[in-house]
Amino acid sequence: MGSLARIMRPDDANIAGNVHGGTILKMIEEAGAIISTRHCNSQKGEACVAALARVERTDFLSPMCIGEVAHVSAEITYTSKHSVEVQVTVMSENILTGARRVTNKAALWYVPLSLKNVDKVLEVPPLAYTRKEQEEEGRKRYEAQKLERMETKWKNGDVMQPSINPEPYTVSYSQSTLIHLVGPSDCTLHGFVHGGVTMKLMDEVAGIVAARHCKTNIVTASVDAINFHDKIRKGCVITISGRMTFTSNKSMEIEVLVDADPVALHSQERYRAASAFVTYVSLSKEGKTLPVPQLLVETEEEKKRFEEGKGRYLQMKAKRQAQIDAIPQQQ
Amino acid sequence: MGSLARIMRPDDANIAGNVHGGTILKMIEEAGAIISTRHCNSQKGEACVAALARVERTDFLSPMCIGEVAHVSAEITYTSKHSVEVQVTVMSENILTGARRVTNKAALWYVPLSLKNVDKVLEVPPLAYTRKEQEEEGRKRYEAQKLERMETKWKNGDVMQPSINPEPYTVSYSQSTLIHLVGPSDCTLHGFVHGGVTMKLMDEVAGIVAARHCKTNIVTASVDAINFHDKIRKGCVITISGRMTFTSNKSMEIEVLVDADPVALHSQERYRAASAFVTYVSLSKEGKTLPVPQLLVETEEEKKRFEEGKGRYLQMKAKRQAQIDAIPQQQ
Amino acid sequence: MGSLARIMRPDDANIAGNVHGGTILKMIEEAGAIISTRHCNSQKGEACVAALARVERTDFLSPMCIGEVAHVSAEITYTSKHSVEVQVTVMSENILTGARRVTNKAALWYVPLSLKNVDKVLEVPPLAYTRKEQEEEGRKRYEAQKLERMETKWKNGDVMQPSINPEPYTVSYSQSTLIHLVGPSDCTLHGFVHGGVTMKLMDEVAGIVAARHCKTNIVTASVDAINFHDKIRKGCVITISGRMTFTSNKSMEIEVLVDADPVALHSQERYRAASAFVTYVSLSKEGKTLPVPQLLVETEEEKKRFEEGKGRYLQMKAKRQAQIDAIPQQQ
Repeated sequence: MGSLARIMRPDDANIAGNVHGGTILKMIEEAGAIISTRHCNSQKGEACVAALARVERTDFLSPMCIGEVAHVSAEITYTSKHSVEVQVTVMSENILTGARRVTNKAALWYVPLSLKNVDKVLEVPPLAYTRKEQEEEGRKRYEAQKLERMETKWKNGDVMQPSINPEPYTVSYSQSTLIHLVGPSDCTLHGFVHGGVTMKLMDEVAGIVAARHCKTNIVTASVDAINFHDKIRKGCVITISGRMTFTSNKSMEIEVLVDADPVALHSQERYRAASAFVTYVSLSKEGKTLPVPQLLVETEEEKKRFEEGKGRYLQMKAKRQAQIDAIPQQQ
Repeated sequence: MGSLARIMRPDDANIAGNVHGGTILKMIEEAGAIISTRHCNSQKGEACVAALARVERTDFLSPMCIGEVAHVSAEITYTSKHSVEVQVTVMSENILTGARRVTNKAALWYVPLSLKNVDKVLEVPPLAYTRKEQEEEGRKRYEAQKLERMETKWKNGDVMQPSINPEPYTVSYSQSTLIHLVGPSDCTLHGFVHGGVTMKLMDEVAGIVAARHCKTNIVTASVDAINFHDKIRKGCVITISGRMTFTSNKSMEIEVLVDADPVALHSQERYRAASAFVTYVSLSKEGKTLPVPQLLVETEEEKKRFEEGKGRYLQMKAKRQAQIDAIPQQQ
Repeated sequence: MGSLARIMRPDDANIAGNVHGGTILKMIEEAGAIISTRHCNSQKGEACVAALARVERTDFLSPMCIGEVAHVSAEITYTSKHSVEVQVTVMSENILTGARRVTNKAALWYVPLSLKNVDKVLEVPPLAYTRKEQEEEGRKRYEAQKLERMETKWKNGDVMQPSINPEPYTVSYSQSTLIHLVGPSDCTLHGFVHGGVTMKLMDEVAGIVAARHCKTNIVTASVDAINFHDKIRKGCVITISGRMTFTSNKSMEIEVLVDADPVALHSQERYRAASAFVTYVSLSKEGKTLPVPQLLVETEEEKKRFEEGKGRYLQMKAKRQAQIDAIPQQQ
């Protein structure tokens, strides 16, 4: 078990005092990186660093506020030959009232890279399971994510272009791009960007898109599985683009693409580093969920993305209903 | 018990990779503030926040390095009627080798202040001691620190600056100097300070000068051309000094000088890196421009600088008038 | 065209919510550095980084507020053989109302430096102008700034401090003062500064004093008891001053005083908030303790403080010896 904790500060939150989903994702990833790096170095052998390969879908169950303490605890739950699964739980604690709430549960996959040669993937020391079933269940999750990863390979060419004088509620109207020059504090000692830094920026751009669309206080409701296609090295400029793909009555789905551009290296082209779908909800001043204005889709591409988003939305809704149905009545 | 943990980043350390003592002290205090605030709110009663009153002598037993995880654990060891003693242990963990070392042990005293009235000290809920001697030993430490505290009352008058007690509205009164130790995040990958970082500090010192002069909310109105005479390298200490040169009815001009001091290089002398004039205006709470108190110039040098500032001011005013005149009437 | 965008955070602004001019200048420069570095590396040849050489006069046309998105767009408008002119426009967007305003227009000059040898200026790839006049107008701006640059060469000697050119190893030589404008992230929710923030600044100034004295890598060895005499409130300017009091063969003691100045409150005087003695040691590149140059004391006050420091040093040494003697042999 590994754990992190810190007080939430004004810069971690939006104006309404809600901590950004991205701040929480960054802490989750830090806890995951620590525990998996520790595990991968637990046997004599080549020193290595655990690099984030994938984050499973993450729900934001409860808001966290400025002044609360965030407790992040991580546990290794499965290891394959070359990867480690970490499950992370985030709790908020109000130190004045003593109230504690679970705000997130997340599952992350890490891959150990050799410190001597960061392009070489090392072997993971086996995990000691307390129950036989744990290994079997873990293997199923491993196979499922492997399959899904292959399906969602990203096309490098899909770039978001700006458009001139867009109408409110169209995709172009809220579409946003954030450019970030990677600095030393964004990086591991080995010169590539922490997965958590990338996730924080992804949430930030999605938040701008959502706020532009609804013009209200918005908060992250969930982040779809994120696949990290490639490492981002020190000195890159990262372009994070977000566009709205789908709106339901009470939620918006935003697609976020991360591209890395090694500006000072002639040899290398800009490449797609990560991508995800983030779901936001709109809140009133009292913290109640508000209706979301419907997204106006204009092009064939936008219609296609809207339908795909609707598919993901309905699938998730069905999954939740099934979970609710599975809970015994007396609870 | 309460605990905090986080990875040490480049910004937490000096160029040699040793984590700053100040970074560790900050984490120690955060852990102490959390546990004592939690304890002081553990009984029904007025909500309060624990404010740091004293830190006992702290030794740095072992260095901490970038990439290591700092584990900070805190425990309440004594409570008097109005104060809480917290003992904190800091461990460094090298997650690659698994090595752990105690780097610090510290003892802090907190006092609970009412949230309704931060000048009111509240009572501390009593601590349940596991051994009788603990209370007795704690009381001794409490009495010892109380005594020492009284002995070392600081004289407010002892000021390091050659204080000639300058009159309000003189140049000396608002003159300010800011020292900044260049950190990794201030620098490009190639080891010199981003021009933007220097400019931010220049504006910061100018803002302090302006605020000291007017004691109101002040905002930057313009920055004169800035020339960067020389690069500032990693590891330098930068001194940014600001002094007021000129005031008009509604604006103030502040001269800012930037000097770089390569402290860790014997060979090189301190040198001027940049300089500029910054103009500030004073705002009321409603955001309206306020009159600026006139600058009192005392020396010949100050008079000369005032006249030069007036020259720049009148020139700029004329230039703007010309621009306004150039706009056709119908617009 | 290159662009940056980010949300303005509480730490970017003053208490009234106006974004600091310095925050905007920093973003302007970041956008300029990215676009000019990209341009200078656009042709095969030596890799380089664009270093800021000059910023033209910049006006702040309209205030920017917390919660708004700052959009910074940069364009290369002229290139000479060895320099690049970048024009930058900053817009604020209120994402709730959709209102956009131009807040700044700036022009910056960059020079490409070789990555292999940062003292070598490289050639800039020529720019393709869309209109013939662009080049001509650019050349005029280039000549004008060149002329102005030469005129405003700064005298290194013009120092704001009453500089009596202190001798190395004296108290005055290493004495340092740091000013810090309290920001939201420095404060508790209840509006006063975290004790840990103050301690971090105290260590920072002590570190600068120690580095100036020895010109080596220095690390904190211990911090004496710190008493917090009074709370520091939001909006204060804190002055942290450090001076060396004593040197032994292998350590230096630095006295640090913290004063708080409630600049925006007419009613309140500057007051002493905390004070401490910090001990530093000097390290070689291999991490071995180095001898410390002896402090040269000049005034009676300095001699008195040196003797007092010696007293504390000998007392602590005796205390440690007693602790060592108390350890049974077998351990």
